[in-house]
Amino acid sequence: MLKGYDASKYDRPSVAVDVLLFTIEAGELKILLVQRNEEPFKGRWSLPGGFVKADESLDRAAIRELGEESGVENIYLEQLYTFGDPKRDPRTRVISVTYMALGAKTDWGLKASGDVSAAKFFSVDNLPKLAFDHQQIFHYGLERLRSKLGYTNIAFGLLPEQFTLTDLQKVYEIILNKQLDKRNFRKKILTTDLLRSLGKKSSGGAHRPAELYRFKKKEIVYTD
Amino acid sequence: MLKGYDASKYDRPSVAVDVLLFTIEAGELKILLVQRNEEPFKGRWSLPGGFVKADESLDRAAIRELGEESGVENIYLEQLYTFGDPKRDPRTRVISVTYMALGAKTDWGLKASGDVSAAKFFSVDNLPKLAFDHQQIFHYGLERLRSKLGYTNIAFGLLPEQFTLTDLQKVYEIILNKQLDKRNFRKKILTTDLLRSLGKKSSGGAHRPAELYRFKKKEIVYTD
Repeated sequence: MLKGYDASKYDRPSVAVDVLLFTIEAGELKILLVQRNEEPFKGRWSLPGGFVKADESLDRAAIRELGEESGVENIYLEQLYTFGDPKRDPRTRVISVTYMALGAKTDWGLKASGDVSAAKFFSVDNLPKLAFDHQQIFHYGLERLRSKLGYTNIAFGLLPEQFTLTDLQKVYEIILNKQLDKRNFRKKILTTDLLRSLGKKSSGGAHRPAELYRFKKKEIVYTD
Repeated sequence: MLKGYDASKYDRPSVAVDVLLFTIEAGELKILLVQRNEEPFKGRWSLPGGFVKADESLDRAAIRELGEESGVENIYLEQLYTFGDPKRDPRTRVISVTYMALGAKTDWGLKASGDVSAAKFFSVDNLPKLAFDHQQIFHYGLERLRSKLGYTNIAFGLLPEQFTLTDLQKVYEIILNKQLDKRNFRKKILTTDLLRSLGKKSSGGAHRPAELYRFKKKEIVYTD
């Protein structure tokens, strides 16, 4: 129930969005960071993000901020979690609604805007010191990403239209940062009902031809 | 990245919390609603909730509002989703950070406070018309609750310390609103790694003694 608004009791916080964009490059899990060109934390790296405008939805704000600061467009963003510790920003109370995305492109065309001086993917194992509580947000996001591999199709953004289970296992191993048992992986992934067999085989190259699969859906779905 | 705050461009919204508290009573899935005693939507039922205070965390606000409006305390709340459509509240822009909980008590001791006139559990199949966009929030929460049964221990709040797989299946069937195949249910739930067998049997009553289980954790965990 929403009570009548009494400004003396309930100071309005600012509301921001921040985006965790993960990708795989050169066999490594990476995350997009931007370098701040304004105080506070000027010069420090942070997640792309910024304040929500009065007339835009949260989803729209996340897409806009990601585009403005890094040049990245056409990426599916999923809301992750809202961080609201009263002291998380030194200026004023700022509540951050965070979004997560996972994607792969051959050329991201990264382009930093006016209020950030650089935009760059960093290996998750080798991050610089981040502004605000973005280190905490990053750790939360990475854990949720790893967890979601088990029961969602979140990896679809990292695979081509058609792929083998070996391709898929490679992506899982990179994100989870550990080797998986081939038999268990296949058994588990095929019980999730997320994949559809294409009933044909890859040409194989140096290997035996392997069965090809695709994700049934290309938006986030959860297993039953 | 959080830019410098410019009030002319970024009007501060109000931030509220709203709580979806589900329970099972008399074999039915129910949700807690409160009846509004103030405009807008005076007299309409809604989710318990209200504005976040300047110095409190979002979690703390959700616990406080639930307690103030319904008398419910000592319930584990998990953040669900943040709703931020610019027009979702007729007064001003209000962003709602929603929380979900699932619990069972023999006596909830419901007690409505000053700005709500009643607090009551309603069967999810028979809800009154709700205030604001709470119907949409309810549908989102119910879907997520059903989905989470598959890969989290979210049902722990509805079961006693020790239970049989038959007890557990009954809870799942009520929440999912459908009958489950006993063999499939057992197979699936035992692969999730959420339960621990107690290595002993129930006394059984009219039935054959059945193996007793407990949840490994009593906070929300996700399966690997």
